[in-house]
Amino acid sequence: MRFNIILFPDFETLDVFGPVEIFGKVNECNIEYYSLHGGLVANKDNVRISTQAFDEIPADENNILFIPGGLGTRSIINDKVFIENIKALAENSIYVITVCTGSALLAKTGLLDGSTATSNKLSFEWVMESSDKVKWVRKARWVVDGKYYTSSGVSAGIDMALGFIHNVKGFDEAKRIAHRIEYHWQQDKDVDLFCNQF
Amino acid sequence: MRFNIILFPDFETLDVFGPVEIFGKVNECNIEYYSLHGGLVANKDNVRISTQAFDEIPADENNILFIPGGLGTRSIINDKVFIENIKALAENSIYVITVCTGSALLAKTGLLDGSTATSNKLSFEWVMESSDKVKWVRKARWVVDGKYYTSSGVSAGIDMALGFIHNVKGFDEAKRIAHRIEYHWQQDKDVDLFCNQF
Repeated sequence: MRFNIILFPDFETLDVFGPVEIFGKVNECNIEYYSLHGGLVANKDNVRISTQAFDEIPADENNILFIPGGLGTRSIINDKVFIENIKALAENSIYVITVCTGSALLAKTGLLDGSTATSNKLSFEWVMESSDKVKWVRKARWVVDGKYYTSSGVSAGIDMALGFIHNVKGFDEAKRIAHRIEYHWQQDKDVDLFCNQF
Repeated sequence: MRFNIILFPDFETLDVFGPVEIFGKVNECNIEYYSLHGGLVANKDNVRISTQAFDEIPADENNILFIPGGLGTRSIINDKVFIENIKALAENSIYVITVCTGSALLAKTGLLDGSTATSNKLSFEWVMESSDKVKWVRKARWVVDGKYYTSSGVSAGIDMALGFIHNVKGFDEAKRIAHRIEYHWQQDKDVDLFCNQF
């Protein structure tokens, strides 16, 4: 598996590095970080990550696209070149995984039309504006529809990442990783304790 | 509050960015990233973070030192210059917070002599070798002793970071942050579901 992590200014820290922690524990996986033009990408937590440019992503039948959320989604969703790139990258990936408001960026490409998806509860109304053709699911820790995995807010990405490993590598592998990082994995994607709390 | 995040080669990804996600949600806090000599610091998840050098950390009465764990602790614990720097930085910080095997680095300075502390369960025997003068607590999600906060493995750092915010900013602020990131916060530092599982 080859995880291509998409970054943009003001990505949400844990949206990215929760799932990266999980993916990095899988044998024979490769994780790379990309932004539209490459270089250092920063966010409000002063995290400055070194990235390569989108056009350096190799064609690879094992490509998995990962899109986080964060405040930066509010502006980059209007960047047509960025969204066109996301669309092309998603079409050429075997799986596409989004956390939090990252699902709005994916929805904007049109690729989620007719599919089910979820997002951060605090930003749900804004996310739904990205597409009225997506069947938005308000009560879900994460949603799987074909090759698309979308999660609720921030920490839900960790549970989804383990759920993804469960689906593609088996339950034992996901459980092994959760134990290794001493994580209380919420295994049921349909249990969402946060959907009524805002 | 000013969080000075210590990085070294092969730090554990989530050890750092779980707590950073929490700290970054506190009003009027500053987060900076430092390594012994500055520059990009990388780990096995291919995360490459831009850092400043230790000697660029300003004297500040609000300094909080944060030390993660990870495989890189196994070699850097033998770097006398690194440990001497950690000791001086810890002495000049109002709080010192470690995750996972980061407590071994802090113990090596001698500053934890006579204090209680915990660490990752999978690496506990190795961690205890760092000092026989520390009262190592095997069963704890995290331990607080004076200005020192030490947590168990990886994801325990998130619960401890919220516990730290609880102690210094109040329960409501910690709960607000946990809800905002849709996180199932384990609030009791003495409940450790992982201590007997390895």
